[in-house]
Amino acid sequence: MKFATYTYQGQRGVGLVSDDLQSLRALRLDEGQAQQGAAALIGRAGLAGYVQERLGETLRLADVRLEAPIPRPRRNIFCVGRNYHAHAKELSASVFKENDKNVASWPIVFSKVPECVTGPYDDVSLPVGISEQIDYEAELAVVIGTQCKNVGRDQALQQIFGYTIVNDVTARDVQMRHQQWDLGKSFDGFCPMGPWLVTADEIDSAAVQVSCTVNGQMRQNASTRDFIFDIPSLIETCSRGITLYPGDIIATGTPAGVGMGMTPPTYLKSGDRVRVEIQGIGAIENKFV
Amino acid sequence: MKFATYTYQGQRGVGLVSDDLQSLRALRLDEGQAQQGAAALIGRAGLAGYVQERLGETLRLADVRLEAPIPRPRRNIFCVGRNYHAHAKELSASVFKENDKNVASWPIVFSKVPECVTGPYDDVSLPVGISEQIDYEAELAVVIGTQCKNVGRDQALQQIFGYTIVNDVTARDVQMRHQQWDLGKSFDGFCPMGPWLVTADEIDSAAVQVSCTVNGQMRQNASTRDFIFDIPSLIETCSRGITLYPGDIIATGTPAGVGMGMTPPTYLKSGDRVRVEIQGIGAIENKFV
Repeated sequence: MKFATYTYQGQRGVGLVSDDLQSLRALRLDEGQAQQGAAALIGRAGLAGYVQERLGETLRLADVRLEAPIPRPRRNIFCVGRNYHAHAKELSASVFKENDKNVASWPIVFSKVPECVTGPYDDVSLPVGISEQIDYEAELAVVIGTQCKNVGRDQALQQIFGYTIVNDVTARDVQMRHQQWDLGKSFDGFCPMGPWLVTADEIDSAAVQVSCTVNGQMRQNASTRDFIFDIPSLIETCSRGITLYPGDIIATGTPAGVGMGMTPPTYLKSGDRVRVEIQGIGAIENKFV
Repeated sequence: MKFATYTYQGQRGVGLVSDDLQSLRALRLDEGQAQQGAAALIGRAGLAGYVQERLGETLRLADVRLEAPIPRPRRNIFCVGRNYHAHAKELSASVFKENDKNVASWPIVFSKVPECVTGPYDDVSLPVGISEQIDYEAELAVVIGTQCKNVGRDQALQQIFGYTIVNDVTARDVQMRHQQWDLGKSFDGFCPMGPWLVTADEIDSAAVQVSCTVNGQMRQNASTRDFIFDIPSLIETCSRGITLYPGDIIATGTPAGVGMGMTPPTYLKSGDRVRVEIQGIGAIENKFV
């Protein structure tokens, strides 16, 4: 199932997206639930039946404004740095210069504030005067479905509710100068997400293609088979000593091909359109303004 | 004013602490507000009058269980690394080894998950089998009072609602091996907070004494005059491109004297009692078990 959060006639709603991706069935939820977006469905037993009982009117996707499926995550998003072999290599002299040279030692995990989440087709404001080095990072995001802690690899996939796409937008100069990365990753609007939340049963996350174009030009294109740390390892890592909650999001890292890795480094400028596509989920596309 | 969040007869409440620190006046709040703890008072215009109108029964502090004043922050806590000159020096060969040698370049900012907050006198569980290097960090925490962004130094103090104490408990081995620090700072129970939230008018945060004892032995004892980055600089830094919200918390860094800086490094063990005291606020004391 694919669950979209949308705005229609000024009201936020949650809908089940049709198989042909042309429409959705609005779910009859109370207003408090609808405000949470698709997060309201996470952790619910008997989800398919629950959804069937609440199917309401059909709306064409062309007639609604899609929002991030989880418009306001419950806490900062867990983000993994340096998780594709080829990307580790391209930034080995810059972002990862001071990091452990053994990329397989332990995952690098930082965070983005929840309020930097924005919709799958929303414009993103370039922070003029604060950073001149805005970069894209196409990522598969895991959404946790259960409260869990100290999860072993073999139990990890069972904790996943589903997947969505994020663009882990980054101010490279800010990321680098503060040494810890949270600030340079957390500017307002720096986490486009969507277009919907896809339940885990629909995706083999160990082998999906993640790609990114800027103004139609391919920049990133890799399979999650190139992960340094697979998704079970990431859940094991993040849950060691730390309780994870339904609705928590783990962004799994970005493939090679970021603007900082180009020669010369090429950052986003006003008018650029960044499209991130993941096989089995869909695509998000944001104009930087 | 000092606002405490407490539990009395199984119910969470918010109270105004008496000048002699022996009792509180319970505030008549609706249940939704009470659940937020003292955070329910932040951002409210005419606060003194609002509080006066809601003063209820008097309870002795000895009869209530104090909770963290903000039991569940709205998002991860912003935390500042390496912000006292003497502390920068003591860990220059370990935690800060890979960091920019110019300590005054830019603040280091990382985060702790909101759910690691625990009460001012609660026990903290040592994460046996996950880390053997649990360390304390006594810190003054700033609580933001207004929604703000791109705040200049001269406007920064006006954005503060008040102050509280945190112990930024840290798993040193986990902090170091992941390179980014969020995980090693975010274990369940790793942010004792309290004993209450003190409004900004009561404290000159540029010159308060921050101290920490372990089993009665003094370990940390410094004035915020030794800050590398003062509080206006920290608010300016965190709000650059990032909207801050009422209830956001910025932990301002820890003085010299952490366990990792001792010769040999000395970590917390079961039964240790860590007490953090800040002039003008009070003290928190937690047993590690």
